[in-house]
Order: sequence, then C-alpha cells, then structure tokens
Amino acid sequence: MAKEITSREENYSQWYTDIVMKAGLAEHSAVRGCMVIKPYGYAIWEKMQAQLDKMFKETGHQNAYFPLFIPKSFFSKEASHVEGFAKECAIVTHYRLKNDPNGKGVIVDEDAKLEEELIVRPTSETIIWNTYRGWIQSYRDLPIKLNQWANVVRWEMRTRLFLRTAEFLWQEGHTAHATKQEAIEEAKTMIQVYSTFVQDYMGVPVTIGTKSEAERFAGAVDTYSIEALMQDGKALQAGTSHFLGQNFAKAFDVKFASKEGALEYVWATSWGVSTRLMGALIMAHSDDNGLVLPPKLAPIQVVFVPIFKGDEELVRISAKVKELKAQLEAKGISVHYDDRDNLKPGFKFAEHELKGVPVRIAIGPKDLEKGTVELARRDTLEKMYVEQSAVAEKVETLLTEIQDNIFQKALKMREEMTTKVETYDEFKQVLTSKGGFILAHWDGTAETEEQIKEETKATIRCIPLAGEQEEGKCIVTGKPSKQRALFAIAY
Amino acid sequence: MAKEITSREENYSQWYTDIVMKAGLAEHSAVRGCMVIKPYGYAIWEKMQAQLDKMFKETGHQNAYFPLFIPKSFFSKEASHVEGFAKECAIVTHYRLKNDPNGKGVIVDEDAKLEEELIVRPTSETIIWNTYRGWIQSYRDLPIKLNQWANVVRWEMRTRLFLRTAEFLWQEGHTAHATKQEAIEEAKTMIQVYSTFVQDYMGVPVTIGTKSEAERFAGAVDTYSIEALMQDGKALQAGTSHFLGQNFAKAFDVKFASKEGALEYVWATSWGVSTRLMGALIMAHSDDNGLVLPPKLAPIQVVFVPIFKGDEELVRISAKVKELKAQLEAKGISVHYDDRDNLKPGFKFAEHELKGVPVRIAIGPKDLEKGTVELARRDTLEKMYVEQSAVAEKVETLLTEIQDNIFQKALKMREEMTTKVETYDEFKQVLTSKGGFILAHWDGTAETEEQIKEETKATIRCIPLAGEQEEGKCIVTGKPSKQRALFAIAY
Repeated sequence: MAKEITSREENYSQWYTDIVMKAGLAEHSAVRGCMVIKPYGYAIWEKMQAQLDKMFKETGHQNAYFPLFIPKSFFSKEASHVEGFAKECAIVTHYRLKNDPNGKGVIVDEDAKLEEELIVRPTSETIIWNTYRGWIQSYRDLPIKLNQWANVVRWEMRTRLFLRTAEFLWQEGHTAHATKQEAIEEAKTMIQVYSTFVQDYMGVPVTIGTKSEAERFAGAVDTYSIEALMQDGKALQAGTSHFLGQNFAKAFDVKFASKEGALEYVWATSWGVSTRLMGALIMAHSDDNGLVLPPKLAPIQVVFVPIFKGDEELVRISAKVKELKAQLEAKGISVHYDDRDNLKPGFKFAEHELKGVPVRIAIGPKDLEKGTVELARRDTLEKMYVEQSAVAEKVETLLTEIQDNIFQKALKMREEMTTKVETYDEFKQVLTSKGGFILAHWDGTAETEEQIKEETKATIRCIPLAGEQEEGKCIVTGKPSKQRALFAIAY
Repeated sequence: MAKEITSREENYSQWYTDIVMKAGLAEHSAVRGCMVIKPYGYAIWEKMQAQLDKMFKETGHQNAYFPLFIPKSFFSKEASHVEGFAKECAIVTHYRLKNDPNGKGVIVDEDAKLEEELIVRPTSETIIWNTYRGWIQSYRDLPIKLNQWANVVRWEMRTRLFLRTAEFLWQEGHTAHATKQEAIEEAKTMIQVYSTFVQDYMGVPVTIGTKSEAERFAGAVDTYSIEALMQDGKALQAGTSHFLGQNFAKAFDVKFASKEGALEYVWATSWGVSTRLMGALIMAHSDDNGLVLPPKLAPIQVVFVPIFKGDEELVRISAKVKELKAQLEAKGISVHYDDRDNLKPGFKFAEHELKGVPVRIAIGPKDLEKGTVELARRDTLEKMYVEQSAVAEKVETLLTEIQDNIFQKALKMREEMTTKVETYDEFKQVLTSKGGFILAHWDGTAETEEQIKEETKATIRCIPLAGEQEEGKCIVTGKPSKQRALFAIAY
C-alpha cells in the first residue's frame, strides 16, 4: 500500500484522520484550530459549491458579500442570539503593529486600540439585518433572497479536520419576506434543497426534521435540519435552515410598508452548510483502503494507469490512452492519465484507491494485443475486462451505477442502524450495544430531553417531518406523545 | 432620470461614488472601511472570478485554502516583508466574550487572552511558505502552483468603495519552483494572464512593466504590474505578479533535494488581483448616465422593456418577448424581461442605463404591428429599429461590437493621454495641465524617483516591458538612461 491507513475497527477516529491527511484533503495549520484545505480537498469542495450555487440560483437567490467584522454591540441586540450563541469568537482589538523597540520583531501598537472591538463573524445575521434596514422600505422591496460564500470563525477548543474547526468555509443564506407564511416556505424550500444535494450528489441519505427548542439556532423560531448517520453509528447534522420570525427585524428595526400601508416588521430566514459536509462525505462512504467518492463530486472520475516496461511500450500505450481519454472527455467525464515514470503500477493503484477515484483503467501491452483494458471500480473494488471499443459507454454507465450503489449502501446501513425502542432501558441498551439512530417517544419537554442527554449523551437530532403520527408514551416519563423523535449521539 | 448622477466634469470623485451606490454595486457598512458588495456588483465580480479561475486552471494552477489568521511572529521572519509591508492590520488578541456584569450586553473576557496575537491576513506568503515547508522535500514535489480566493484585511485610514477598502476580496497565487528561471517565467506568465483578462474581458488597455525598487512588493526581487489609465488621467495598478527569489524559502527554511542530490532553497512567486478591478472597470468606461459594462462581464446583457397600456397589450407583447428571449438565450446570451407594472418605460430606460446593461430592447404595440423592435446600445446610446426576425443575430453581433468599441475607446483615450516629455519642466506642466501617463527618462535611482514623487505626486508606475530601448537623459539629473519609465499620479 502507498500509505497505510488505520482500519475502522481498530480506531475509527484515527481512520478518519488518516484518510483526510493521507488522501491529501486537509491538514492542521500553524494556527490552533485552523486547517489548510489542500488542493484535492478543495477541488471536491469546489464541486460541492458549484452544484449548491446552481441550486440556490435556480430557487431565485443571488450572491452578495457582507463584512468579515461585526461590531461587538450588534451581538447584544437580539437577546436570545447573544444568550444562546457561543461566545467563543475571535476578537479584534487593535489595528496596528509596530517594531519592537528591543529589536525583536513586531509588537502590538497599544496606541492603535479600537474604540469598539470587532468580532470576526461566527455567522452574519446581525450585520446583514443591520444592512437590510437601509434596503427595505416597502413591500415592493421584498422578498430579498441573498446568499454569501464566506469564511466564519468560532473559537473551538477541540477541533477535528472538516468536522469542527475554528475557521471554516460555508455559505449562509439570509432572506427577508413580507409574510410569515412566505418565510416558513423559504426555510422549508432550502432544507429540501440541502436534502436533494446531500442525497443526490453526496450519496448520503438524510432525515429532514425540526429541532427541539434546546437544539434550535439562537434567535430562531424554528430550525429545520438534515441529519445523516456515519459508519460508526454517530449522527452528523449536515445542514440547517432557520425560520427566524421577526426576531432580527425587531432587533435591528427593519420595517416595511405593506400593500395596505401598515408598517410591519419583516420576516426572516437563514440557512447554511459548511465544509463540515466534507467530513460527512468522507465518513459516510470510505473504507479501510481510503476515500470513496461519489462520481458526481470526484475531481477525477477516471484514472488511466499504464503497465509498461521501457519507453517503446509506454509510447504505444499512451497513444491508445489518448484516444480513450478523448472519448471519455467528450462525454463530460474528467480523466487523469497517471504516466509518472518513477512509480510502480501497484503503488499508483493504492494511491488512487486512497484518493477515492471512482474508476481505474489499467492498460498494458497484452491489452493492446487483445484490444481490452482492465477496469476497476472503487466502491466495490471489483475488476473487469472491457473491450476498448466499449470503454466510453461502459464507464458512463458505471459512473451512474457507482453513484447509485454508494447511496444504496449508505441507505441500507442507515436502515440497519435505525431502531425503534419503547422503553428507556431498551434505549440505553441499543445506544451502548449498537448506536445509530433511535426512534423513541418523548414528552416534548426540555427537562426530559436534558435528562436523556445527561444520562446517555444522546440528543434529539430532530423530529422527522415525514415521521409517522402515532400515539405513544414518553420512554422516560410515560407522558403522552404523538410522534417519535430521532435520537443519536452526534458529532 | 431614475437617479441623478453627478457629472464627471462637476466632480469626478463624486461621479464614481454615485455610480457605485446608485447602480447598486456596493455601499459602506457599519464597520469602518469595510464595504457591502451588493448583488449586482457581486454578480459582476463572479463573472470576473469565473473567467480568471478558468485561465488559472488552464495555466496549470489548482485552488486551495489557507488560514485567515497568521501568527504575529511569522511577519518578522522575512526581514524586508515586515519592514516594507504596512503594519496597519487587524489584530486578534482575545477569543471569548462574556456577559457584562452590569447587564449591558457583552464585553471582552480578559481571561481569554491569546498567548500570541493573530493577524488577519493582509496577504498570505508567510503562512503559505510555512506550510510549504512540510510539502516539499524533493524536486519531484515541485513545482507547486496554487491559488486561493480569499478575503484579506489591510487597515486603511482613507477608504473608497472597491478602490481601497479595509477588507477586500482577491485571489492570491503562490507558486514554488526548483529553478530561478522557472519562477521568473511563472511570474511573467501570470502578468500576461492578467493583461489578457483585463484587456479582453474588462475592455481596459494596460501597460505591462516592472516596478522600480521603491514600488516593489515587500519581499519581492521583481514585481511585474499592469497599469491602466482612468478617465480623470490617474493611473490604477490593476494587478501584480512577483518574483520572490528565495526570500520566503530562506525565511521559512524550505529546501528541496535537487536531481543531483544537492539541498537547495526553493524559488517563489506570488500574484494577485482584487475587487479593486471593479473600481477600474467602473471608472474606465462609465459616463454621466451611469455604468457602462463590457458585454463579457455584464450579468444582464440584454433587457427587454415592454411599452404598453393595459393588460391586453402587455399579454401580447410578453408573448413576443418570450419568443425573442428564448432565441437569445439559445445563443448563450443573458436576458432580463423587465415587466414591472408600477414603473414607466422612461424610468426603466434610465435605470438600465445607470446599471450599464449593454443592449436594451423596447417593444410596443406598434412594433408588434410592424414586426420590429427598438434596440438601444449602452456604449454609444445609439438607437435603431430591427426586424424581429433579425433580433437574435443582430444582438449577437452587436455584443461583440460593443465589447470591441469599449476597448477601442479606452485605448484611444489612453493614447491621447500619454505624453513623452524631455524635460522636468515639461513633465510638471503636462502633469498639471493634462495628467495621464508620462513617458520620461529617469536615471534609475531611488533618490530621483523620491524627489519627483515629493515635488509632483507622480510615481513611476512601471518600466514598460515592451518599452523602446533608446538613449536619453534623466529629466531631473541629466544622467544617462536607456529606457523611459511610465509616470503618473495614481489611485
């Protein structure tokens, strides 16, 4: 193997880190909690961005850009936002360095202290709603449907590459509406967009639901989320969409004249996904050989590896590869020809497996004679011989098959790892023995939720939107419940 | 007129601000020196990004992402970098807020002071070269050709939308090479890429040259720049590409084993363009009616305005517009149908002129009868009647014509505004009477350059790469010179 990876069984957490590092996706930087996203990892993120951006535009959104810094006082304006939102932020207090009089590099110039500290945005509701006040006078100015692609910072004590980092990349949508109903529709539309993206492009099945009050975004009236299940049986929140009511409009005094001439507060939503999706993508599909990528997001979908001795063979193989590569590219498939001359084919095979390239095509002198190639699919590690004349068509079909297979595999895993329980004992037993999603009746109170969390570490991931309405009794208090909540231990 | 704009003659600076604000490109934010890029402005920036990104990838570059924060000590490592680079930066000193014990919002938690302050990146050479140390061992690891799209912060005292803001968006390329020659070639390739982009897409003619030592990037051995001329006769530096020698490799101890087995320092380049290009784009072409956009970067290339009385007419016109719109869109042209029913056509005309939409098509009941439309081009304000059957073809040709005309007009302006002078008196006289670019002989010393700058405010924009080699005498000292330098007062 090119680079040894810890197996999932041995140490799931190390397995994840190994893949991220050794597949060249990201690494830790010299700045605590901040990562470097390496070219291969960034290429995957770019594919995610491109597709999401397209879907946002198709649903009527435009991009804009708001400042990185937010005046400290803005955070106090929306009471529950400041209460509920983590106060771990990066705070800018000065604006100038000067030479150290002792000649030891540079020091902070104490004369250049800001009158009001600036917070590096952990999210942008406050600065955006402060801006919207100037943009909205009448119902004719509504709706405003904006998104921004940006970096945000939340000072995290314990970080993990992609899953939890101090700085991360994300998109945040912020919309303003004339009616409550329209804002709720928008929040629901966007959680559906996220669900479609994560399922159809990332190949990760998700459950859409609403958050309990305790798990809601600070300042939201309702939070919708999509929840995915990782191979270790832990849940991962993959995206959220918030109906913010009139909370931010009231905090920042954003009113509009309605058609009828009344002055009303504006209704709001916000929604976001981040580079955390990279973590979900990696953990959902990969195996002990490395990354497994869904073809729709793979920067390289097909890699050709020549099997050759000497230049003469390489020249003949390269000519054939050039021809096949052109056929594939004509179908919009991204192809790489790995003709490095200092590495053995076996090493290259392992490296492309590690990097999750969906299809590998090996071609040697015997293949030239027989008019075949050896084709290997990454998801099942299956190998097959294919006529050269059939390669383009075969690969095209195969990429669709792999995309589908990856999703079906993850779906099957999730189904096996989802358990309905009727008692608290059963709940605890399933949690320790098997993990995964647990569907259980809950009395709807924050107290019970808190008790379960404290005693088991499991939290309510969501109350599924498509959940069955059924009479039941809370597993802890026995009080009546009308729908099961989805519990899990989460990332 | 929809929104009155100050004329260039009356107040050029106010004219610029009026266009930026009233065309909905950007506005000032609540944070000093930071702007909000509004959707229309951001849509132009996205078109710039997409084209540049394509050109970077075509020249073998990949994108990656490095941290927003840089440890303070990194800045002291490259001596001329810290000396020359402005020390006005945003400095993060704390990482937590807490509730004010007096109940007045939030305050900085003094217990959460960072051991080492973090600087919000003003540029990323230091953090990137600190990272490259871990990536480069052998010549086989080279070249590394990366780019990042990012926000950067330089604390500016006097800011102007797009032209000079505390936070701005940019791309920064950072490459590592095994040989000096290869690094120089890279720096030259990228300044050519910038030149091609600015001329062919933005329609702004530029002069490529090298910077004098005084104007060089801090830490660079050579800085190449492209210089453009604005309508007020001031120059604007539109992009730079630096050959950094081994300076950053030495500062961050980045060595590689050469083919011959020797341990050598790596050669570097960096290059960048920013949202400043938006400023150049606006100032280069716009007129007293508002923005003039080159078709290749216009978010909306064609706008249809219906001229109608009552619903029945609108329905008939809309049917025809739908048909023509589809024809244009089939050619890849972006079209907007402005069928707002609360605004008069005249108001809409003025608004689309203000926003620089290259082609406007008006269509009323008479046009329906005659089978024509009224077509107006933004660059010349010319109007013409066109057969409906010929619209798609006509518009396609016209967009190319407008793109070309805009460039030719700017080129002609630059030629008229470029003066060769032989004496310092002439230099000063041209500068005050006419402005623009001045080509003059200079003795190559920093002293003379400084004297000219102090006495006239003009700086050496560059020593043109394509400049004629001719013997001459420095206009100030009379010492010999072999080539004219390009002088101007600059933004």
